[in-house]
This record gives sequence, structure tokens and C-alpha cells, in this order.
Amino acid sequence: MALPKSVKIVEVGPRDGLQNEKATVTTDQKVALIERLAAAGLQAVEAGSFVSPKWVPQMADSADVLRRIQRQPGTSYPCLTPNMKGFEAAMDCGVEEIAIFGAASESFSRKNINCSIDESLARFADVCDAARAKNIRIRGYVSCVLGCPYEGDIAPEAVADVSAKMLELGCYEVSLGDTIGVGTPERTKRLIETVAKVVPITRLAGHFHDTYGQALANIYAAMEMGVSVFDSSIAGLGGCPYAKGASGNVATEDVLYMLQGCGVETGVDFDQILQAGWFISDVIGRVPVSRVSLAMKAKV
Amino acid sequence: MALPKSVKIVEVGPRDGLQNEKATVTTDQKVALIERLAAAGLQAVEAGSFVSPKWVPQMADSADVLRRIQRQPGTSYPCLTPNMKGFEAAMDCGVEEIAIFGAASESFSRKNINCSIDESLARFADVCDAARAKNIRIRGYVSCVLGCPYEGDIAPEAVADVSAKMLELGCYEVSLGDTIGVGTPERTKRLIETVAKVVPITRLAGHFHDTYGQALANIYAAMEMGVSVFDSSIAGLGGCPYAKGASGNVATEDVLYMLQGCGVETGVDFDQILQAGWFISDVIGRVPVSRVSLAMKAKV
Repeated sequence: MALPKSVKIVEVGPRDGLQNEKATVTTDQKVALIERLAAAGLQAVEAGSFVSPKWVPQMADSADVLRRIQRQPGTSYPCLTPNMKGFEAAMDCGVEEIAIFGAASESFSRKNINCSIDESLARFADVCDAARAKNIRIRGYVSCVLGCPYEGDIAPEAVADVSAKMLELGCYEVSLGDTIGVGTPERTKRLIETVAKVVPITRLAGHFHDTYGQALANIYAAMEMGVSVFDSSIAGLGGCPYAKGASGNVATEDVLYMLQGCGVETGVDFDQILQAGWFISDVIGRVPVSRVSLAMKAKV
Repeated sequence: MALPKSVKIVEVGPRDGLQNEKATVTTDQKVALIERLAAAGLQAVEAGSFVSPKWVPQMADSADVLRRIQRQPGTSYPCLTPNMKGFEAAMDCGVEEIAIFGAASESFSRKNINCSIDESLARFADVCDAARAKNIRIRGYVSCVLGCPYEGDIAPEAVADVSAKMLELGCYEVSLGDTIGVGTPERTKRLIETVAKVVPITRLAGHFHDTYGQALANIYAAMEMGVSVFDSSIAGLGGCPYAKGASGNVATEDVLYMLQGCGVETGVDFDQILQAGWFISDVIGRVPVSRVSLAMKAKV
């Protein structure tokens, strides 16, 4: 039950986070945020999404963002590329890692993208073939791993199934997302246990939402199972899908505080992360959705 | 590493919580809150403090509260009684369980009550003698167990020492308080491990603050060590000592959600707890400091 010696944090704020914020963030501000996060020592900063601006207007400037960021050696800047058009556009901007996404819930898949889970994965086949041919790394996201807004509980076996398929598509890592934040530590452990039977634990990441305040407990439980990669969002960006002050993505600040306190290495500078969180929070006009950030600010 | 089958929640909102809220709460409202909490199935509801109203004006009506509550069989209503005057007053209202408090940090003890830890415990000797003579149960609180605002880190041995002394004074249980909320799960485990060498684990309780968002992870870690009693505060009452929207006591709602999700029995009705949280939050004019409560409300 020893925790991993070190953990890799995958920062998803500039894409997953900002995509779900209403405030307008300029290209300059996005570039500044991404550069600050990389400068703080994060090894992976999700930087954009190459989808139709009709669907995701907040990411319409991803090509500009990716062209303008000063890349830091040792940091990857993954981008979502749901189709070949997006993939080609990403290649034009020098993207070196892409991400694809699927759901562990049939109802969620059908209601959100109007096709079955298998069909949704099949749609990524072209993109994955093209990426592998160019030696582009592919990361997979699975949503609804601990609960679905339509189906309720999701069987760990369903998550294992889609995770294994993502590995077959060429993903080097599969990120298990508790999209609605309903998971608790014991269920997280059972999930990891089941999925690790078909996907090596070193290729699993945890993506927890703090909607019910459970994210850190779930991350701790997942670390006890050997998971050593976790997604988080600076300042809890992408916070509240429905309630003011409520949480979505777990805040990078809160994850980092727990990891440091547990003696787990991350290579990330805490002060720079706190400052990056306040920078983007000021931009979007609210305080960070991070208890650590608020507590540290109050102490100053 | 199996979790306890059941956990006892000690509700501290009506005393520890309201004592640290600025809003005025009438005796009627306190009585209603305590009765709702007991009706929800909580086995222990901290109900008042028999101290000078000069020091704690919010608890000036504790005698009235204790006289008026409709006591429920199987529920205890502990009260703080720091001296014989307070103890006698508590006895006059039919109090059957008292609480005493000490710190694990010498600096905290000296700066807050102007005496050493040992001196502070000696002051409780009379009260404890009197309580034991009357068969009144005594609960002990130790503050600053994972950090002190003046000293920083606190050695687990210092916590073990004061905990053992509280047992000698006659406490049936010692509640370990992370007063400033800086603890993380691994340090929580090392603390429990050390203290359990001198106090049986069945007589230890955890009292975590959510200031840095770590409370649930710490409770989970403590459960893994065998601790099965936790203090929490309805709606996160007593929340923010210094920052608006920041947290103090972990919210009962959030603890309960995690325990239920982990299959740990509490005997507490979740809906009634949620309603009690909104009742007192409406009284004091804010929303609950509970992610679970906000998320559940948004779903309705």
C-alpha cells in the first residue's frame, strides 16, 4: 500500500477547464497561462481542441494558441482531435500529442454523441492510424467511469472494456474520468482493480471531479492502488457546470498540496502554480475553486 | 486495510460550529437544529458550552438550550465545561456528557490560554473528578495535532503524550483535531500509528478541518488505520475563520456521502441531514459550506 514515489500531473485547465467557462479568454491570455503552467514544472499541459468552433467556440483559437506558445523541453501539450480534419490542423501547428475520448456509459454516449461506445471508438480509427504513422502520442479519455447522469452506477467491467479498446487503438495512456464526481474511495479502488486486469496500471491515469468533494480522497485511494498519473485543472477551471461555487475538475493546487504533504514528488513548483491560478482567475473574474488557494491567500 | 463496518459521527455544528459563526442564532433555532440532527440518527450532538458569556457570547444560552431540547434515547448531547462553575451549571440542566480540551502544541496552549499543556490539563482535574463521581462521561479534545499556527509541524509523540494524559483524567475517548486543516493522509496515518501505541484505537476519534480540502482524504486514511469515530459539522458550520467561502470544520454532509459511498454504516439519514444543513444555513444567511449539499441542491 506504499504510495508512488512520484506522480505526474496532467494539467487540463487550458482546454477541459476553459472550454467549460463562460468568460471570454483571449489568445494572449491562454498562451500566457499555458506558458506559466509549463514554467511551473508541469510535464503535460492540455493546450487546445481542434473541433468545429460551432460546437466549442471557446477553443476556436486553438491553432493560434498552439502556434504561439513557447514550448518548453520536456513538456507535452496534448490537444483533442476528434476527426481527420482536426488532426491535420493540429499537425499544421506542430502538435505532438493528441487525445481521443470515449464513454463507459452507453446512454451517455448515445445521448451526447448519438452513437454507441463502439461506434464512437471506430470513428477515431483514422485519426489513430494517422497519428501512429507520424509517431504522434495518443492519450485516451474515458468518461463516466464511476457514474452516469442517465444510468447511475457504471460497472467497472464496462470501463475495463472501453479502456482496453483504447489501448488497442494505440493510446499510450487511458485517463479514467469521474465526469459527474460521484465516486468515492472504495469504489475507486474496485474500479482500478478491475481495469488494471486489462490495462497495465502504469498506463492508467485518474481524472476526478470534485463536485461532491471526493476528488482528493479518490486520488489518494487510486495512489494506494498504484496509479501515478492524475489530471487536474488549475484554479478548478471548468468548475461549475450547474451550481455557482460548485466544483468540476479537481484543482491542481489542491492535488499538489496533498501530494507534497504525502511526500510524493511532482517536480512542480507550488508557488508558481498558486500564482498561475490567481492569474487566470483574475482573467475570468472569480476566485479560484481551490480550498488550498483560498487558504493560502488568506494567510498572506 | 479493510475499513470499519460502521462509523460514529459526532456532530459538532451546534457548539463548535455556531460558536465560530458571526450570525445571531436564537435559542429556538438552536433547539430546532439539535433536535433535527438527533432525529436524523446522529448518536452524538455537541449541544453547548458552559463558559463565561464574556468569552463566548454565542453560547450564552447553553443552559436554556439544554433544558429545552427534547432528548432522544440513544443520543448524547455533550457540552464543554472548562471549570467547576460550568460543570455545576451543566449538571443543573441534566447534561450527561462533558468535554475537555487541550493542545498538542505548547505555543498554542501558551498563546491561547496562557499556560502550558500540563497546566491546562491540571485545571480540568476537579471537573473530571466530579464527573467521574457522578458517572458523567468525559470526552477529550486535542487541538493542533497535525500543525500549529505558531510552531508549524507537531510531532506525533507530543499528541500521543497529551492524549494519554486525557485518558488518565478519565476521558472515554480522545478526539484528535487538525485545528488549522493542514494535515494530509500520510501524516494522518503516521499520527494515528503513534498515538495508537498509548491510546487504544477504539478510543480515538478524528476531528478534521477542510481548510485545505484535505479532510475527507484524511478521514479515509484514518479509517484505513481503524479509526471509527469522526467529528463533523452540519453545513460546515464554523466554516471560515479568515476567508469568505473557506472551510473550517468538515461538513457532515460531505463525510456522510463518502461513508455511504464506501459502504460504511452510520445509522444517519442522508436526506434529513441535508435538510438540517439548509435549515441552519438559511438561519445564518449563507449556503452550506458543503460540496455535497450544493451539488445535491443543484440536481433537484
